[in-house]
Amino acid sequence: MNLPSKLLEQAVNEISRMPGIGKKSALRIALHLLRQPSDDTARLAEALNAMRQQVRYCKQCFNLSDAELCSICAGGHRDEQTVCVVQDIRDVMAIENTGQYRGLYHVLGGVISPLDGIGPDDINAEALVRRVAEQQPAEIILALSPTMEGDTTAFYLQKLLKPYEVKITTIARGIPVGNELEYADEVTLGRSILARTRAE
Amino acid sequence: MNLPSKLLEQAVNEISRMPGIGKKSALRIALHLLRQPSDDTARLAEALNAMRQQVRYCKQCFNLSDAELCSICAGGHRDEQTVCVVQDIRDVMAIENTGQYRGLYHVLGGVISPLDGIGPDDINAEALVRRVAEQQPAEIILALSPTMEGDTTAFYLQKLLKPYEVKITTIARGIPVGNELEYADEVTLGRSILARTRAE
Repeated sequence: MNLPSKLLEQAVNEISRMPGIGKKSALRIALHLLRQPSDDTARLAEALNAMRQQVRYCKQCFNLSDAELCSICAGGHRDEQTVCVVQDIRDVMAIENTGQYRGLYHVLGGVISPLDGIGPDDINAEALVRRVAEQQPAEIILALSPTMEGDTTAFYLQKLLKPYEVKITTIARGIPVGNELEYADEVTLGRSILARTRAE
Repeated sequence: MNLPSKLLEQAVNEISRMPGIGKKSALRIALHLLRQPSDDTARLAEALNAMRQQVRYCKQCFNLSDAELCSICAGGHRDEQTVCVVQDIRDVMAIENTGQYRGLYHVLGGVISPLDGIGPDDINAEALVRRVAEQQPAEIILALSPTMEGDTTAFYLQKLLKPYEVKITTIARGIPVGNELEYADEVTLGRSILARTRAE
């Protein structure tokens, strides 16, 4: 692009480094900021810096947090006997939104994926083992995506946790609520028949 | 959204104020920044602030510029007898990219659009009239979009410029190069027949 201003060009280049934003969207954003009061831009820049410098990981569950312990771990009003293991903080938010879970979390920060160069040492697995050894929770729920990487990671964690006396469960796989049976894929449908539950 | 950190929430809110970015994309961007070195975020924030505070409008043509006159107006190597009137700076960039135009520009900063509350006083029309009166260019090219708003604006400018001895032209409307004739809309095809040019 042939931009009329070096400063605009720099801003567009920086904005277009964000995921999902190309040069054209970046330019649209930059021109939008130029049309708005300069306070808006200052507030955006300040919010980005404050977040990057002050947000940290909860030292217990690796959820994002403003303090040493995240609000879920620090609250004291959750079931501390249950720990739900998830891939990243978006999964925490998704599960929290269901309102169905009252336990704690453990955020792995990724799943094992040799193709992406992510090995067992790149996820917070050792910390999970330490946590189980120290705190001795009653149940570990593996809430990982039903993908090759998610299944590999679940298998690896199960092996790591074997020496400890803790019940390990995985979230149910099956037909999504509200979906038509005929459109479900074969694997999901097949497994949902094998893993059938008693009608209540 | 149920974010685990107030600072993250503030950043996501600010990011999602940008055009074309919803809450989910904003969260993805924020998490991306948290994974990258904090220098990256600092550089982004700095580039945004520098752009917003220092980029200004060229005092002659209202193009964006780092100095009082933009590089096109200040260059001295352009045909100053021709002024191309466009809606905004993206149109300047689009025309510059063609490499077919050697004249100057005049950026209106919008088109007349009563539905959006943009009247004749909200665009740089008076400044164009003053410029024509003072500099007496030979030709004004109206390069506005062939929409209701663009046509209204072109008509209004033609009326404003009538008292001055200046040739007023509009860019050609017709079948886009490379398009199949059968897919052209009726209005464009009809006009392109009426406005046919001699084969060379």
